[in-house]
Amino acid sequence: MFTNISIIGDGAMGTVLAMLLAEKKAPVRIWGYDAKQLRQTESSRQNSKFLPGYVIPEAVIFEGDDKKIMAGADLIVSAVPCQFMRSVWTRLRKQTPKNTPVCSVAKGIENKTLMRPTEILRDVLDSGKRELAALSGPTIADELARKLPATACVASSDEGLACKIQQTLSTPWFRIYTNTDIVGVELAGAMKNIIAIAAGIIDGIGAGDNAKAALLCRGLAEISRLGVAMGANPQTFAGLTGLGDLVTTCISPTGRNRSFGQRVGAGLSPQQAEDETESVIEGIATCKSVVEGLLAKYKVEMPITEAVYDVLFRKKSVQVAIVELMTRRLKSESPAN
Amino acid sequence: MFTNISIIGDGAMGTVLAMLLAEKKAPVRIWGYDAKQLRQTESSRQNSKFLPGYVIPEAVIFEGDDKKIMAGADLIVSAVPCQFMRSVWTRLRKQTPKNTPVCSVAKGIENKTLMRPTEILRDVLDSGKRELAALSGPTIADELARKLPATACVASSDEGLACKIQQTLSTPWFRIYTNTDIVGVELAGAMKNIIAIAAGIIDGIGAGDNAKAALLCRGLAEISRLGVAMGANPQTFAGLTGLGDLVTTCISPTGRNRSFGQRVGAGLSPQQAEDETESVIEGIATCKSVVEGLLAKYKVEMPITEAVYDVLFRKKSVQVAIVELMTRRLKSESPAN
Repeated sequence: MFTNISIIGDGAMGTVLAMLLAEKKAPVRIWGYDAKQLRQTESSRQNSKFLPGYVIPEAVIFEGDDKKIMAGADLIVSAVPCQFMRSVWTRLRKQTPKNTPVCSVAKGIENKTLMRPTEILRDVLDSGKRELAALSGPTIADELARKLPATACVASSDEGLACKIQQTLSTPWFRIYTNTDIVGVELAGAMKNIIAIAAGIIDGIGAGDNAKAALLCRGLAEISRLGVAMGANPQTFAGLTGLGDLVTTCISPTGRNRSFGQRVGAGLSPQQAEDETESVIEGIATCKSVVEGLLAKYKVEMPITEAVYDVLFRKKSVQVAIVELMTRRLKSESPAN
Repeated sequence: MFTNISIIGDGAMGTVLAMLLAEKKAPVRIWGYDAKQLRQTESSRQNSKFLPGYVIPEAVIFEGDDKKIMAGADLIVSAVPCQFMRSVWTRLRKQTPKNTPVCSVAKGIENKTLMRPTEILRDVLDSGKRELAALSGPTIADELARKLPATACVASSDEGLACKIQQTLSTPWFRIYTNTDIVGVELAGAMKNIIAIAAGIIDGIGAGDNAKAALLCRGLAEISRLGVAMGANPQTFAGLTGLGDLVTTCISPTGRNRSFGQRVGAGLSPQQAEDETESVIEGIATCKSVVEGLLAKYKVEMPITEAVYDVLFRKKSVQVAIVELMTRRLKSESPAN
């Protein structure tokens, strides 16, 4: 079990993991790129921006210094949104100890490079020796903070690291499974955000739960298809980080990507809908990465992802996109379709 | 395409399919076992008991006579709940024309015999010559009546029959896929009701969306496990009649099985929760069939289904059942687990 954990990133997920570790009496420190913001959270013992309403235990140590946060850590958690990982880790690179394992909790695919979170870490930090892991699953931070029952998956090509992180983070209300398919776990976590935007659009125009279920189902099929083409295990997409996370993201009223989609479905432009929140809507950038990069490279059919792209970036109307999806040629239900 | 359809059963699904066929200008008749109730629906042109609020078009013909309903039909739709199929079809057996195909829309497994809906039809009507099909999927009747976009799957070992039913029932707002795995489609449709009861319990005690997503995910895994042991294609469970229907049933506020579970989670006894509705809660009988019959026969692990059984039939408290599920031995996420 790890006994000295440094969390990089003071958003909702970084904060709630710090709270959980403090509860388990594990020494835990948290760092944020905005030192002023971090000090404010420290003095109020509340993350009013990203996780309002919960008291952060005294045991959580706030550390704004780039060097001090790394000293003595035996596990580093990267809780930085995907599109900001490169800049944050470039800043911290020199301070990061050579052999300390890093576990990412980001869900996305970097624009232009098309890298997964742990690939960005590998690219920025060092080239192959460091052990990396990814934690993902249906984990709405607010519910974790309330200690409601939840599950997640920690993936690493190094099973020993996955088991150690499992032991470190598990509590009676937070059940963690291990998985060796880090490619699948990261891709599923990233791509479900695109489907969540589509589910929000369905909610926004009031198309109903039959439509939403069909969307989840066909959406999961298409993201699995791309995942498998990229080397993932298809079973991963049926698991907690695929189906499980997709369900939470699509039904929770608080999910960022779904809520963003709902505003678009209700009539706002994508820009207006994005301007209404301070949170990062990872699905927008991921959709861009998939359609502009991965689709051409792997040549798989992803009609829902493409429809979301057309609505977000090509001004296609939501109504037209739905009619097009519903009136494709009638066919049989098989994985190839 | 079929051009003369007789629907046996005047519940929500039978009624909405009649409305849909009338809209497509297909001659359609509907029969109910309670002639008085049927006449009342006919005179008010509204199914006030099971599908209130929608006008049934004049083109839908109500036919209470056991012989007349069968005359001239080229497709018979069985829209009778699973546990009532044997008695209804035993009554209609002599009147049912020898070679007319029957498509079932029931979702369940018969208690004691452990038969699927089309197996009951085969058992009661004749022994092997008649073509049978099953229609299933995320199809909340109320949403179909409002012509909101929906999908479903029609399964038959006879692909030609499946295609003909697909053509007969498809509309621009109701997209139907075909599937040859009738075993999987019927089992998925039946067993998802057990998981829906569990999802309702989660809602009733307020355990949150992380827990609900984990439940759907692990629930789908265990019903697939049993399905595969019984000869189904695992892919079917990831499709519209497995995952798709499960999602709708678990998120829709109106789903009968979920709502029943919600009342149990909120503190009612199973009997009290059942007494509060006139609808058949198929999941209760299905849970009984699975735990008392199929589990012993096929020897697969189904912790969620067993927990639901213990809550419904053995007075286990909901809280104890959830704690037991969350504190099982930590493990890896693989299909075998």
